[in-house]
Amino acid sequence: MPDRRAKVVIIGAGFGGLEAARALRKADVDVTVIDRQNHHCFQPLLYQVATAALSPADVAWPIRHILRAQKNATVLMAEVGGVDAAQKRVRTNFGDIPYDFLIIATGAMHSYFGHDEWAPFAPGLKRIEDATRIRRSILIAFERAEIMSDAEEQKRLLTFVIVGGGATGVEMAGAIAEIARQTLAADFRRIDPRSAHIVLVEAGPRLLPAFPPAQSDYVRDTLMQHGVTVMTDTMVTKCDARGVDLNSGRLDAATIIWAAGVTASPAAQWLGVEADRAGRVKVAPDLTAPGHDDVFVIGDVAAVSDSSGKPVPGIAPAAKQMGQYVGRTIIARLVGRAAPKPFRYMHLGNLATIGRRAAVVELGRFRLRGFIGWLFWSVAHVYFLIGLRNRFIVAFSWLWSYLTFQRGARLITQPPGDTPG
Amino acid sequence: MPDRRAKVVIIGAGFGGLEAARALRKADVDVTVIDRQNHHCFQPLLYQVATAALSPADVAWPIRHILRAQKNATVLMAEVGGVDAAQKRVRTNFGDIPYDFLIIATGAMHSYFGHDEWAPFAPGLKRIEDATRIRRSILIAFERAEIMSDAEEQKRLLTFVIVGGGATGVEMAGAIAEIARQTLAADFRRIDPRSAHIVLVEAGPRLLPAFPPAQSDYVRDTLMQHGVTVMTDTMVTKCDARGVDLNSGRLDAATIIWAAGVTASPAAQWLGVEADRAGRVKVAPDLTAPGHDDVFVIGDVAAVSDSSGKPVPGIAPAAKQMGQYVGRTIIARLVGRAAPKPFRYMHLGNLATIGRRAAVVELGRFRLRGFIGWLFWSVAHVYFLIGLRNRFIVAFSWLWSYLTFQRGARLITQPPGDTPG
Repeated sequence: MPDRRAKVVIIGAGFGGLEAARALRKADVDVTVIDRQNHHCFQPLLYQVATAALSPADVAWPIRHILRAQKNATVLMAEVGGVDAAQKRVRTNFGDIPYDFLIIATGAMHSYFGHDEWAPFAPGLKRIEDATRIRRSILIAFERAEIMSDAEEQKRLLTFVIVGGGATGVEMAGAIAEIARQTLAADFRRIDPRSAHIVLVEAGPRLLPAFPPAQSDYVRDTLMQHGVTVMTDTMVTKCDARGVDLNSGRLDAATIIWAAGVTASPAAQWLGVEADRAGRVKVAPDLTAPGHDDVFVIGDVAAVSDSSGKPVPGIAPAAKQMGQYVGRTIIARLVGRAAPKPFRYMHLGNLATIGRRAAVVELGRFRLRGFIGWLFWSVAHVYFLIGLRNRFIVAFSWLWSYLTFQRGARLITQPPGDTPG
Repeated sequence: MPDRRAKVVIIGAGFGGLEAARALRKADVDVTVIDRQNHHCFQPLLYQVATAALSPADVAWPIRHILRAQKNATVLMAEVGGVDAAQKRVRTNFGDIPYDFLIIATGAMHSYFGHDEWAPFAPGLKRIEDATRIRRSILIAFERAEIMSDAEEQKRLLTFVIVGGGATGVEMAGAIAEIARQTLAADFRRIDPRSAHIVLVEAGPRLLPAFPPAQSDYVRDTLMQHGVTVMTDTMVTKCDARGVDLNSGRLDAATIIWAAGVTASPAAQWLGVEADRAGRVKVAPDLTAPGHDDVFVIGDVAAVSDSSGKPVPGIAPAAKQMGQYVGRTIIARLVGRAAPKPFRYMHLGNLATIGRRAAVVELGRFRLRGFIGWLFWSVAHVYFLIGLRNRFIVAFSWLWSYLTFQRGARLITQPPGDTPG
């Protein structure tokens, strides 16, 4: 260690990166948090922005505001291009940032299983911009259907395909069903929004594989009651501008939403270390990258197993636990304490909502569903939001939506230069 | 009149167009409202979106939701390319729409006095997209200043020029001063946001020319107390990527905001009639376009004088009054009643805010300023918002900002394909 305050650089201000920064708040170090965005995004509620229930600012918070009171932390908005591990520097578009310890917490992006050419037709949901883009395409589909006279084209416009039956896919399908059957029901004159065709496609045998089978059945049944067509054991073989090819046949659809798979950001390439099939770095038990004692990799970009050998899931609580662990490890090293025991993931549970008054909760042996599950889901998500303002606005928006069946952010905004219509 | 329900087509769902539609709610007509956006935008509060106090959805509302209960109204989201007055058809990107009566309420856009090449460097504020673009450039300027080491460039990044000393210019300057001096004050480590240089440039001799001179003086003094440099009698002679040329010298600035002038949408060209210098149609006393008995032109796109010969200002109450008048006129014609008297504008007053606890109000002889003026301004704006939800969220956001000095929507979002940094 050099004879000065150690420099800790954290790349990425998601759940893992922020938690690591907080764990170091009392340490005698200089913390630099680098993110390409100015905001931390609460990804579990991003689907509500994509479905017009919440505004982007309700689920995002400026990173430097979160860390404003932590005097040893500096936030830089910059794009990281690579890591020079030999020189211990992070390369950014605004120059190099030196480090003594590096924490890579850059998360994951959606993956098209080698078919990146599908991306323009089937956007995924990871960033605020993805959410407003999906919101635009859902709302524009109804607008165009209203103005079109061709019945075939109207049917295509009112078909929505969601690929992937995990939590995001289930939540998106439930929310689009609500929009079509309740929010928009009285707003159109030429089409009946309730006739919209919402299809949830899952390659595996059941929805929400992380939940017990009984919960999966409940979710499937509830979605079907809400008018969603659930197709399990169904593979997407192609996405194009007019719809999707499934192994069971063709489905013409104007809106395709990708919730099927993720791939880690390129941390393994930056470090020149081995990646697993999902692009994640196979870290050591103390979450360091192989051969890099001073580089930690956490969150969705790290491949870790829990005590039973199962892979740690890519969810917020796992990333937070890794962030805390790494912060403690760095402090121990600096003060010359013995290294902590290997990282051990504690699984708290799984939550997913299907929409109005319906959700599933699995906390070990404690299981909920239906209205009470939905209340639990709502309270838990408001609780984990950052900031009193966002908690209040989100709680108010949900109450208002619950009472009125409306959604407060039904905005179609165009990217500059795009032609409307 | 043909022997069927008359078709009234309204182009534009701003204040004028919506009010015209509402005035026809009980009439035996088919109303079609065409707008290129899906939402009505409450322009008087758009500057609060541009300055991160409110979310876009707080000042916008889906047009078809506003008119959902009006069964004789259909809303179409389409781009109008022209009017075929001989055939009585509106040309849109989704085909022609026939009309018996046409109401053109397409509003105005910012105008660069023949220098459209300034537009990329000095965005104006008319649409939601303009507001998020300006918000992005203000917030990015602080982010880049934090990461830059060059002192000259830092100074340029922290210089904000607002061109135009009307209500929008004054409100933008006051809000940016608040962001720099209060909201961001503790969030940066390398720069002091309070050192930002905010310059309000006005070509005329005083700010807010629509107000009495004593109110203008108060506004200038208050802005200066808040750290804004006010330059009256100052002309912009050039805008470029690095700053502005003024007749008094050069000002390097990363952010330039245009609030200096507007030009009407091309209704005059559509109709082949004469336009005034600001592009507006010189309408007859009953607001019909010259030579077009069945085409009404209202709001910012109409050139009208009040009873004393002064031009009717381009503000929301004027557009609403015209919309109501035209609605009544069409009903009178349909039932064969005598045509109403010529349109007469009733001026209610002017309001503008400078920021926290400071505003000016002029309602005829009734004048307010300071804290009480600010309260009046706040209540009036919440009252005129559409929808209970938006009123509640805006009131809550203002209360929260007032108590915490924070702004809830400090989001930098990138248009797709744009490179961050």
